[in-house]
Amino acid sequence: MSYQFTVTGMTCGHCERAVTQAVQALDPAAEVRIDRAANRVDVASTQPRDALAAAIAEEGYEVAPA
Amino acid sequence: MSYQFTVTGMTCGHCERAVTQAVQALDPAAEVRIDRAANRVDVASTQPRDALAAAIAEEGYEVAPA
Repeated sequence: MSYQFTVTGMTCGHCERAVTQAVQALDPAAEVRIDRAANRVDVASTQPRDALAAAIAEEGYEVAPA
Repeated sequence: MSYQFTVTGMTCGHCERAVTQAVQALDPAAEVRIDRAANRVDVASTQPRDALAAAIAEEGYEVAPA
């Protein structure tokens, strides 16, 4: 499945890496694309949307409700 | 020696960690204190100032001239 998340609080490249790693900890095969300026995180993953959103939120970023 | 650096570009806690790790890669015993809001990095280290400044700059942050 492909998901699009609106994620705020990513301020730098380290944050992008933290979000990517959080998703890939849940699903190592996940593809993650981040447009930080747009607060946009696109994920292709077999995991459910809620689990992915929770993993990103646990890193300390705000994920907008779907 | 104790050094004070003015470092710009640290936007989040990951950046603080990156700066700390850059300094401690050079000198594992170095003490690092960061006041991100003040762009201030205090370092206690046996390494010379220039080497510490270069290590921080290599992480992608701007270090003001002494």
